[in-house]
Amino acid sequence: MTPDRATTDPAHASRIDLNADLGEGVGDDAAMLTIVTSANVACGFHAGTPADLLATCRAAVAAGVRIGAQVSYPDRAGFGRRFMEMSTPDLIADLVYQIGALDALARSVGGTVTYVKPHGALYNTVVHHEQQADAIVTAVRDVNPDLAVMGLPDSEVLARAERAGLAVITEAFADRAYTPAGTLVPRTEQGAVLSDSAEIARRVVEMTTSGRLTAIDGSVITVAADSICLHGDTPGAVDHARAVLEALGRAGVEVARSRS
Amino acid sequence: MTPDRATTDPAHASRIDLNADLGEGVGDDAAMLTIVTSANVACGFHAGTPADLLATCRAAVAAGVRIGAQVSYPDRAGFGRRFMEMSTPDLIADLVYQIGALDALARSVGGTVTYVKPHGALYNTVVHHEQQADAIVTAVRDVNPDLAVMGLPDSEVLARAERAGLAVITEAFADRAYTPAGTLVPRTEQGAVLSDSAEIARRVVEMTTSGRLTAIDGSVITVAADSICLHGDTPGAVDHARAVLEALGRAGVEVARSRS
Amino acid sequence: MTPDRATTDPAHASRIDLNADLGEGVGDDAAMLTIVTSANVACGFHAGTPADLLATCRAAVAAGVRIGAQVSYPDRAGFGRRFMEMSTPDLIADLVYQIGALDALARSVGGTVTYVKPHGALYNTVVHHEQQADAIVTAVRDVNPDLAVMGLPDSEVLARAERAGLAVITEAFADRAYTPAGTLVPRTEQGAVLSDSAEIARRVVEMTTSGRLTAIDGSVITVAADSICLHGDTPGAVDHARAVLEALGRAGVEVARSRS
Amino acid sequence: MTPDRATTDPAHASRIDLNADLGEGVGDDAAMLTIVTSANVACGFHAGTPADLLATCRAAVAAGVRIGAQVSYPDRAGFGRRFMEMSTPDLIADLVYQIGALDALARSVGGTVTYVKPHGALYNTVVHHEQQADAIVTAVRDVNPDLAVMGLPDSEVLARAERAGLAVITEAFADRAYTPAGTLVPRTEQGAVLSDSAEIARRVVEMTTSGRLTAIDGSVITVAADSICLHGDTPGAVDHARAVLEALGRAGVEVARSRS
Repeated sequence: MTPDRATTDPAHASRIDLNADLGEGVGDDAAMLTIVTSANVACGFHAGTPADLLATCRAAVAAGVRIGAQVSYPDRAGFGRRFMEMSTPDLIADLVYQIGALDALARSVGGTVTYVKPHGALYNTVVHHEQQADAIVTAVRDVNPDLAVMGLPDSEVLARAERAGLAVITEAFADRAYTPAGTLVPRTEQGAVLSDSAEIARRVVEMTTSGRLTAIDGSVITVAADSICLHGDTPGAVDHARAVLEALGRAGVEVARSRS
Repeated sequence: MTPDRATTDPAHASRIDLNADLGEGVGDDAAMLTIVTSANVACGFHAGTPADLLATCRAAVAAGVRIGAQVSYPDRAGFGRRFMEMSTPDLIADLVYQIGALDALARSVGGTVTYVKPHGALYNTVVHHEQQADAIVTAVRDVNPDLAVMGLPDSEVLARAERAGLAVITEAFADRAYTPAGTLVPRTEQGAVLSDSAEIARRVVEMTTSGRLTAIDGSVITVAADSICLHGDTPGAVDHARAVLEALGRAGVEVARSRS
Repeated sequence: MTPDRATTDPAHASRIDLNADLGEGVGDDAAMLTIVTSANVACGFHAGTPADLLATCRAAVAAGVRIGAQVSYPDRAGFGRRFMEMSTPDLIADLVYQIGALDALARSVGGTVTYVKPHGALYNTVVHHEQQADAIVTAVRDVNPDLAVMGLPDSEVLARAERAGLAVITEAFADRAYTPAGTLVPRTEQGAVLSDSAEIARRVVEMTTSGRLTAIDGSVITVAADSICLHGDTPGAVDHARAVLEALGRAGVEVARSRS
Repeated sequence: MTPDRATTDPAHASRIDLNADLGEGVGDDAAMLTIVTSANVACGFHAGTPADLLATCRAAVAAGVRIGAQVSYPDRAGFGRRFMEMSTPDLIADLVYQIGALDALARSVGGTVTYVKPHGALYNTVVHHEQQADAIVTAVRDVNPDLAVMGLPDSEVLARAERAGLAVITEAFADRAYTPAGTLVPRTEQGAVLSDSAEIARRVVEMTTSGRLTAIDGSVITVAADSICLHGDTPGAVDHARAVLEALGRAGVEVARSRS
């Protein structure tokens, strides 16, 4: 995610994965499952009862959507959105527990967990926090080294996952503005979250077909993503997602699981 | 567990499994792991954090003790000791979640869950409650039909597990008095819980070598058990357990995992 | 709630309280607070974080709506909708804890808890369960004997509350069908829940002005209620509530806090 | 807590408060209640069920020991020992909820909460974290401005509490080594925790009668404390506490509630 010099990148042109957070008891999971190819299913630590998660896995399997474990800090009251200081052994155990629990639910309905995506504050923390990033890598490797890790390009967690031999899935955000440095504009700043379906769809096509994106200051940056995150719980989420899907279709991009 | 007519039963003479509840944050797990052959490890719904459970699994693997998932109602405040009305789908999902979580923890340290034992109020409920007994059988079969189910002889849950083709492990209790009908004397009655190590050890040898036991009224009953439950959290628990182990050794009984 | 013999009952004609469950993170609390006179605020055991509950109390105070503590079994995963066996001391302690917590939140924003309403499975249980009904009465009296108890007419809990000298608030349900015996038609039966705003409004006016209601078999029964429960989380809930409010206005009934 | 220049300070000679953490389900609460004058009772967020807390309050009232609310982050799995990032409104609501819940339990058995002491990571955080320190002050003032705040001398939270007009209770630790700067030697360093009852007792007498204490490097520092914290859950805790009590008696120091 460096300032862009490429002009065309055919590798980006043909195929993209679309992911969304599901099983959290918010948003229209059924509608989103008709659009996405990857379902980040909550594991009960930030949201979701086992029965909720099982129902989401069953629906994902029926829709042919692959299942990822959306692991979180043990912070239900805060929806996993608050940083927690955790020792490495505690965090590893929490992660193994969550991945194992969701995988058993998925398997009981004919699916399986194929990747792990940290949620909320944990997602943001492991962009830079070396110790917690390592805990994720260790936990994934301990459970199943064939699992991929989904995260922000150039993040600590993906760098360490790759060094450990794990597959990684880079993702970009459909409805978020980017800084010239290629990071997300913080939600607290104006213009951070996009709300116009047409613009969101246009940007997803742009980054998917060219690997480039216009940052908030008008400069053009590179965004190399295997998957696009479509938020499922914001107002208009399903409309945005449908607009993205249709625009990708018109642009000749196949929406399909990332090869990771 | 019917009034006894057998005189000798050599099948009982050679080998017995000893189990205890571990990972609950009460009792001396390390000491108990030097004695038992089966560890009923809590799964976080009635007790235990993931880090606690992982440490218990690691210690069990180091001690060569097999691991069972001690599944519970979602009742941490009540230590799983209170009956809860639960729909079949909710209970199945809760059980699959717990078994999967513990199995992933066990596997991450070189072990694996090989059986499932309901805890507390759930244990007592599925002696007779058909719907909840069915939920356990379905959950175990959905996760892994090679898992055995541990429970009370003649209980609804074991009868249904056998009909479903699952292996079962019957258990008897080292420190509990039995009624003439072969059921446990309720804890609320006098004499229900034994506290003398020598007597506890003598009774375990009796039921293990002869399949018979003296009930609270002096009559002799049949107790067919694959495993003996040694409580790990009562006063004197480790002393009782050591006395049982030594008495079995003197009686020439091998303490080893049940063949289930 | 006996088969009706009264013809007119002017006591019912002038004034009625409207209540709804709020702070549960479902439904449109802000809209409901413009309609109801009593807010049954969750206490965190079946739903709601302290921050949610504080926000709900603040909004209720701003709207001039009185606050009740909607106490529950400690069953967040089941939204308090599952029966739990609880010892009297455990249940009393859970209830005192919840009432005290909510009252402190309410007081911190200028309000106060003035009544207690059991939620979900606890509500249905204490219609007949003597031990749990007693626990509610004891807890309320221990916290503050000036608190009223809201519940079903002729229920065990209200009978015991009255005998203990507590004020009671009887309630009827706007959107539920009644049996000829004056009890609610179980949700599992056809026609149990009404969905037509006009019919719901008409029934509320009928029971409010005449104390009578047409049961599901066409017979006329007596329904003596100090308050009408408007569900806030069903489809069309706010529309139903507005229709009820307008119909009561047209019928000349003042919507105001019950005098309990 | 500055390098000491005083020689004698009669204000320290006559009277001291002793406090301990209770209701956490660890340690011998009954024994500690015969020694301490202040009980820091858990509020259910890091440990303790409502029934546990009620039993602790009842025992404290019977023993004539005053009750404080030991408030915590919502982190039961981590026993409240892990820093959590929390918004001011979320933290205030959590604190008001806990204080209100414990006060209702205390009042139901004839007691009342008279002070608030943060627990674990929250205790350490508000030594310096201005935003979280403010949240504690606001919560205490919102619930009851007559409540005192117990904490480390010279901490952010006590400074802000005093500026807000709240009473404060400074505390020193019986079994912890101090740095020359008057702060606690971190637990990770050698010699941080004292384990010899006689030495612990001698140090408590020293700081109580002279206001001075020998730091880990041999220098003499000032320690001005209204209350001495006796840990209740470490090995030998009750023995240490008894030794302290007896030594204070021999030194002519009255053990009594601080006047705050």
